[in-house]
Amino acid sequence: MPAIGKRIWAIAEGYIPSASHGPAPELTSHEAACLLNCAEAPAQVELTVYFTDRDPAGPYRVEVPARRTLHLRMNDLSDPEPIPRDTPYACVIRADRPIVVQHTRLDSRQAENALMTTIAYAEG
Amino acid sequence: MPAIGKRIWAIAEGYIPSASHGPAPELTSHEAACLLNCAEAPAQVELTVYFTDRDPAGPYRVEVPARRTLHLRMNDLSDPEPIPRDTPYACVIRADRPIVVQHTRLDSRQAENALMTTIAYAEG
Amino acid sequence: MPAIGKRIWAIAEGYIPSASHGPAPELTSHEAACLLNCAEAPAQVELTVYFTDRDPAGPYRVEVPARRTLHLRMNDLSDPEPIPRDTPYACVIRADRPIVVQHTRLDSRQAENALMTTIAYAEG
Amino acid sequence: MPAIGKRIWAIAEGYIPSASHGPAPELTSHEAACLLNCAEAPAQVELTVYFTDRDPAGPYRVEVPARRTLHLRMNDLSDPEPIPRDTPYACVIRADRPIVVQHTRLDSRQAENALMTTIAYAEG
Repeated sequence: MPAIGKRIWAIAEGYIPSASHGPAPELTSHEAACLLNCAEAPAQVELTVYFTDRDPAGPYRVEVPARRTLHLRMNDLSDPEPIPRDTPYACVIRADRPIVVQHTRLDSRQAENALMTTIAYAEG
Repeated sequence: MPAIGKRIWAIAEGYIPSASHGPAPELTSHEAACLLNCAEAPAQVELTVYFTDRDPAGPYRVEVPARRTLHLRMNDLSDPEPIPRDTPYACVIRADRPIVVQHTRLDSRQAENALMTTIAYAEG
Repeated sequence: MPAIGKRIWAIAEGYIPSASHGPAPELTSHEAACLLNCAEAPAQVELTVYFTDRDPAGPYRVEVPARRTLHLRMNDLSDPEPIPRDTPYACVIRADRPIVVQHTRLDSRQAENALMTTIAYAEG
Repeated sequence: MPAIGKRIWAIAEGYIPSASHGPAPELTSHEAACLLNCAEAPAQVELTVYFTDRDPAGPYRVEVPARRTLHLRMNDLSDPEPIPRDTPYACVIRADRPIVVQHTRLDSRQAENALMTTIAYAEG
């Protein structure tokens, strides 16, 4: 199956709540960048994280193996630095081959969880 | 009315919670790939499901009749194999004529349901 | 300001829950097709509604005045026929000039409301 | 890093609930237009707000500095006039260089919050 997608993606709305209700990890408040690589070779992916009032962080580097999906929890990024909680951010994702990116947040700050998702903005 | 849409679609964020609250089937936690075929002839559709750490599953085959919509519950797929619960996945949908695909999840793991939707990524 | 948008739009996921909690009309379970006409002249809009197992309904006709938005509640459509509740449907929206369409559902079947939205699929 | 995005964006579904539950400001019902400027120079952004039955409001002017994101709460706009609560609106966003726009609503009218998001409609 040929590759599907684009090489440059952007998520403008990022925010990881620091509080949660419900069992961890599945109901921990989190954001995920869901990456799909349909190609027959692995995709090398770099993320750059933008903030309101400081220089961008990154690049964060992950690999998505051939014919695999990686639901990357933004909460788990630590190298070069963790993403601060309760802080507006945005993210640009660049891959060395076409991938598909979808952005999701699960917010369990209140007793019941809320969900949101969107296909990210694609370019290239 | 002429066909509307594209022949290749992708959903990068898939996850079927195993737990639910509320009356079945309408408030059972589920994901749906909503397919719209505006054409005057049926559309033959194939789905391939991608995972984090195993080879893809499928193809799953469904038909969307002419001038009909099919809200396909991913929970109901069984041939060649069911989609495991509580497991990140992604999905590529290929049709032999243009269709439109929208992805929705209803999550009722906690007492009140949460919803998310997005038009899938289109190509071709 | 020049017109912005496209002339053909599709929403593949439609479903109006029959049950609601909370004060009407703002917390009544509903779906809306939000239409934006930035042009200096009114837009004539036709909606066709697709089902799983019967022929399409419509056309439904609405006008969006110049430089106005119309948040059309699908619940309120009655001519030529209402959209049945608790029934999967899809929708194609055609306008005689470019408009922008966003689809939203508020689901208040359980005690707390759930929300979902997406920019519709655009063509033309 | 080169600029990413488009110069014209539209959000067709806007609505700021007047009621909220939970601690302010993070759980106040609100809508945000999340703007990402990846370029090496600041972006000058103008918003025009459309209504159902009156002339548009604006332009509202904001700057997004180079390599920054601005999560603009629509609730906070006041010049030339605030956006009325409990009122359907829509929004066109124009920038003097490419940006990315994502639209989010947090609705906390009921005891638990609901979330929705979508990448806005892009043109140009």
